[in-house]
Amino acid sequence: MSALTAGILGASGYGGAGLIQRLSHHPEVGQLVLGSRQYLGKELGVCWPQFQGLLPGTRFEETASVIEKSDVLFFATPHGATAPLVAQALAAGKRVVDLSADFRLAPDTYARWYGAPHPHPELYERARYGLVELHRNELPGAQLVASPGCNATAGSLALAPLAAHGLLGASVVVTVLTGVSGAGRTPGESFTYAELNENAKAYKPGGTHRHTAEMEATAGRAAAAAARGDGKRLRTHSPFEPARVSFTPHLVPMSRGILATCSVKLPEGASSSTAELLGLLRDYYSGDPLVVVQDDLPQTKAVAGSDRAVLSAHYDERSDHALVFCVIDNLGKGAAGQAVQGFNVAFGFPEWSGLTQSGMWP
Amino acid sequence: MSALTAGILGASGYGGAGLIQRLSHHPEVGQLVLGSRQYLGKELGVCWPQFQGLLPGTRFEETASVIEKSDVLFFATPHGATAPLVAQALAAGKRVVDLSADFRLAPDTYARWYGAPHPHPELYERARYGLVELHRNELPGAQLVASPGCNATAGSLALAPLAAHGLLGASVVVTVLTGVSGAGRTPGESFTYAELNENAKAYKPGGTHRHTAEMEATAGRAAAAAARGDGKRLRTHSPFEPARVSFTPHLVPMSRGILATCSVKLPEGASSSTAELLGLLRDYYSGDPLVVVQDDLPQTKAVAGSDRAVLSAHYDERSDHALVFCVIDNLGKGAAGQAVQGFNVAFGFPEWSGLTQSGMWP
Amino acid sequence: MSALTAGILGASGYGGAGLIQRLSHHPEVGQLVLGSRQYLGKELGVCWPQFQGLLPGTRFEETASVIEKSDVLFFATPHGATAPLVAQALAAGKRVVDLSADFRLAPDTYARWYGAPHPHPELYERARYGLVELHRNELPGAQLVASPGCNATAGSLALAPLAAHGLLGASVVVTVLTGVSGAGRTPGESFTYAELNENAKAYKPGGTHRHTAEMEATAGRAAAAAARGDGKRLRTHSPFEPARVSFTPHLVPMSRGILATCSVKLPEGASSSTAELLGLLRDYYSGDPLVVVQDDLPQTKAVAGSDRAVLSAHYDERSDHALVFCVIDNLGKGAAGQAVQGFNVAFGFPEWSGLTQSGMWP
Amino acid sequence: MSALTAGILGASGYGGAGLIQRLSHHPEVGQLVLGSRQYLGKELGVCWPQFQGLLPGTRFEETASVIEKSDVLFFATPHGATAPLVAQALAAGKRVVDLSADFRLAPDTYARWYGAPHPHPELYERARYGLVELHRNELPGAQLVASPGCNATAGSLALAPLAAHGLLGASVVVTVLTGVSGAGRTPGESFTYAELNENAKAYKPGGTHRHTAEMEATAGRAAAAAARGDGKRLRTHSPFEPARVSFTPHLVPMSRGILATCSVKLPEGASSSTAELLGLLRDYYSGDPLVVVQDDLPQTKAVAGSDRAVLSAHYDERSDHALVFCVIDNLGKGAAGQAVQGFNVAFGFPEWSGLTQSGMWP
Repeated sequence: MSALTAGILGASGYGGAGLIQRLSHHPEVGQLVLGSRQYLGKELGVCWPQFQGLLPGTRFEETASVIEKSDVLFFATPHGATAPLVAQALAAGKRVVDLSADFRLAPDTYARWYGAPHPHPELYERARYGLVELHRNELPGAQLVASPGCNATAGSLALAPLAAHGLLGASVVVTVLTGVSGAGRTPGESFTYAELNENAKAYKPGGTHRHTAEMEATAGRAAAAAARGDGKRLRTHSPFEPARVSFTPHLVPMSRGILATCSVKLPEGASSSTAELLGLLRDYYSGDPLVVVQDDLPQTKAVAGSDRAVLSAHYDERSDHALVFCVIDNLGKGAAGQAVQGFNVAFGFPEWSGLTQSGMWP
Repeated sequence: MSALTAGILGASGYGGAGLIQRLSHHPEVGQLVLGSRQYLGKELGVCWPQFQGLLPGTRFEETASVIEKSDVLFFATPHGATAPLVAQALAAGKRVVDLSADFRLAPDTYARWYGAPHPHPELYERARYGLVELHRNELPGAQLVASPGCNATAGSLALAPLAAHGLLGASVVVTVLTGVSGAGRTPGESFTYAELNENAKAYKPGGTHRHTAEMEATAGRAAAAAARGDGKRLRTHSPFEPARVSFTPHLVPMSRGILATCSVKLPEGASSSTAELLGLLRDYYSGDPLVVVQDDLPQTKAVAGSDRAVLSAHYDERSDHALVFCVIDNLGKGAAGQAVQGFNVAFGFPEWSGLTQSGMWP
Repeated sequence: MSALTAGILGASGYGGAGLIQRLSHHPEVGQLVLGSRQYLGKELGVCWPQFQGLLPGTRFEETASVIEKSDVLFFATPHGATAPLVAQALAAGKRVVDLSADFRLAPDTYARWYGAPHPHPELYERARYGLVELHRNELPGAQLVASPGCNATAGSLALAPLAAHGLLGASVVVTVLTGVSGAGRTPGESFTYAELNENAKAYKPGGTHRHTAEMEATAGRAAAAAARGDGKRLRTHSPFEPARVSFTPHLVPMSRGILATCSVKLPEGASSSTAELLGLLRDYYSGDPLVVVQDDLPQTKAVAGSDRAVLSAHYDERSDHALVFCVIDNLGKGAAGQAVQGFNVAFGFPEWSGLTQSGMWP
Repeated sequence: MSALTAGILGASGYGGAGLIQRLSHHPEVGQLVLGSRQYLGKELGVCWPQFQGLLPGTRFEETASVIEKSDVLFFATPHGATAPLVAQALAAGKRVVDLSADFRLAPDTYARWYGAPHPHPELYERARYGLVELHRNELPGAQLVASPGCNATAGSLALAPLAAHGLLGASVVVTVLTGVSGAGRTPGESFTYAELNENAKAYKPGGTHRHTAEMEATAGRAAAAAARGDGKRLRTHSPFEPARVSFTPHLVPMSRGILATCSVKLPEGASSSTAELLGLLRDYYSGDPLVVVQDDLPQTKAVAGSDRAVLSAHYDERSDHALVFCVIDNLGKGAAGQAVQGFNVAFGFPEWSGLTQSGMWP
């Protein structure tokens, strides 16, 4: 009756597919409108074999048509190209969840990492960063949710509790192992099965991947919030002194999944233990329905198809490093699942609506 | 209020995991009781990482306890060992869905293929074969549902329409490509990643795999039903003259999925066309919510994590062979999904309850 | 001293890489010249990471330059585009090993399967089909060796012994499982890792794949040669009555490897046994150094990186089908290895020169 | 004529298979004798499908028989169990290459990491550490070569040049991504294809994996040698002050390959650049035939089946970390290839004998 019409732009990409899957079962969404340039006018099943025969009659439409028909818009479109469309949607009174990178960073930080001025700096003030675990208090009522990057999600969830306890010392190394779907559906020759199976490689090494900026910003905010005595209650625009993170992603032969291993040299004089680190994670994420902290080191398969994050920790006493591990499905908690989670909190729906708890094993 | 308590025996195997996933969300199931010898007394998350932190407090129990507490029992236990437990459950007035092979074949056929007398031939009369698409009329009220084998499901769905139209000629070759989870969770050295990745092989070649008997029985019944003018309304125990099927499964490097390619030499004088074959499949499965017939050749990934079957067909004019293709997720429509589908129809619930339509892509 | 200069056209494709690997170690080859349009002027290591730092100074050159400098030319270039280059090379007095499809089929058969007249029918008479096991007597001195297709190699090696014994009856079904490198190095979106991992599908079903014609021709020749009492001593251009083969390839998630499963309905009145079939294969390939016949069903990993073929057989008594299995590495015996084998026999070198026996396990 | 007889103990494991492959083609090895408890008396092809039909007549023998018949023994047997057999072989006047961990560490370090006293401390003095690139001068004539661990090889090759230049600062984090064959051929349930495909996880986190000790020892020696002005000319038993390395291995879904990513916080006041780091690597490994230094980040597939190591480097200016990357095939340069390399140098053969340069792509 009062169900929403949700529009998905970029519905022929992997982010879009995850949104279709979740929103088509969402109790508050009555209607889906899908946008795609590549598949304009085509039926859903032509683009996505897994939906063959489902949602009959659904065809991909033009951007303007999707914006017009929808109450809320999910943008799973490329960064840079997205900001103007978001501006258009907001001007038309629509609410927006943006999975692109366009509203994740303050305009000056954006300019530094993306090599160009922010296209709509005036809208950044209205954006709320959609890492729900840390920004839950700021999201209700948000007109524009900036959903975090996949690597940034895993890295930030791992680093924030350490940052809040002042444990980021002289070296913060974030190593991410990522499945190849993070590169999107049409990424070219070097992503073919024959080139990637039995292959692992680092890319965009330390200091060159843009998700570094998101991790640093989140860690800085977590530290500032804790210093203020606010616990996890971050304020998006509060000043912070970010830690310098050396982040290097690694492509490994799997379709889905992200494992972030954060190796943090503790500050002079600090020391810790595995039990203490685990306790610290458990406290920090207590009450967060999408986060599990466990004693065993996590594995990516445990969250395949799921919208949860699983964390663990270990203290390397010999070298005085705290290790924090976080796994997510890059297309779940790292993309569509997190976007729907942000949508739920922004709209006042139960945080779990439309999301999946247990993934697929094996 | 009147929700059922469902028991799962063999809950630490892959079939069990799929049942937990589906039944924990099933609207008519209020309580789950899990049985496992290997994990007796352990918490769910110890056995299944994907359920870590979910269904808190759930521990694996002894068989007797599971039977006693449950209204309906799902057996995902090895063949041979299962029949006595089924007998025990039925004697205690419980209803049963059996995923093992113990009640799929008539006792004499069973004896021929399993090399031993059927352990409970008297119960076979009470069993209903759980291939819902063909046996939908016989299942309501069933006390004992014998859920089909994974290969048999794919092969039978492909062959039945041809059989019903008298198109099984001098040669019926069923080639199955199967993911390795079909061998279960603890299958030994030759199933390690290092031995199986970049490897494909046939096993149990023509005439030696027991699922052959299920395919032949179903094809024979489909032919007999059509000859009686009953359409798909099969009668489980009706006499039939089975076609001889040469079935060879092939292990390929993937965790999930079955692709059955059936190459059928048409009888003398018959001929066909791709369009005719597709029409014949569409007619036969018209109204079946879990079956999709499409023009394009199907791929296993389209049903990964789904409970649907996708079929297509092609006519090889040069050699006069009809080719029918069927893909399923061996752990979905081939195991847990089909068991829940049979449960739904046996209990009068909507056929779709607890099942998943679209799988996970990529 | 008298070492040959070998030229490789299409050296930036997978066939080319295999040729570089083998010919750079070949005792009779003193110099390699590489051609590639895509990598023209680039260093070898830019194109092929596995050769980084090896063969220093080697750069990709233009076609004309490669032809001019070489004594023998290997064409790993697309069909259709290759024939004119072969004509040019032959006119310049060079000898040729052609891995494309351009000289494998008689011009009328070619026209039927490729939908266009053969570009150089006058050269077909000079071509010798490079399936060494069957054509060993015709190859010495050949100016133009037409190296067989990968699927055709596996299917033909399996069918030839049955054909020679008159065992191809009413139905000849060849099912091939193939790794994705067969599609080449730049095959587009649907070959990405994310789309192909955990995926299996048939393509070009019965009667539509061009390698069907090669299998039929070889089986026909094998039957004709046997009828003449010539054993394996085929004559390329002898008349034959080909069996009709229903061949369907299946793409499975692996980079390399082909498994051909041939299911042959025996002629009326014939019958057989597994032992008889194995004996028949062993006799047929006795003395062939690149073919192994074994009791166990073969697996593709056993020939990964190798230039050998492994065969086995099974008799399905119930349905009266002979099953013959053959595995090869599609890039070894199915491409570069077979081309070098044909080159060796054409030039009078030991058949094994430059080839690898044992592959890589795991 | 004067060819050696080489014995391989543990010939039914992956290390053994690699040794068979290399030594059966080695110009100085005339005869192979294979030992295996599991396959005692069986033919080679029963254990290793890739050798089916090759080395005819070769059967696995008892340990004593292998030791007696051989001039040189390669031990690919478990640590702890190996040392007594090595003692036995040395006592019989044989020379030994040991791929186990038993003679890699000084007895006191061994005791600390393996939780037990060294079984034969008196033999350690006779052992030479087989990382040829650093210990080339010590190996000629060695009676006992202790071949390094696979992770240790990759990590040590990456760290040594930095250590020699005094660049190991407050934090030395070594992250390794490893294929699953490192766990051996029979590693149990959690290594099945279904559990590992689409899965990545860390194990034995910082400070708990024994290869840490090898990396620290090598880095310490490299620093000490440089301090003495000896360049790479290490002396095995020289005193050193090892850096503390935080090493965490990660299991990724591939059969072969190791990628070590070393993130090193530079000492106070030091700074660097990518060009400087690359230059430093090139200088250090100048003249080493098995090491390639390249500008591009390396990928594991480039060394699959090869005995080479490929390194690269990157300077993260923002966070002042030097990153060094190293890929090897864990079964090539990480095991059998390195063992044969050490054998070659110990016996005065060309370093390359029996080894492979280019691996298999794809």
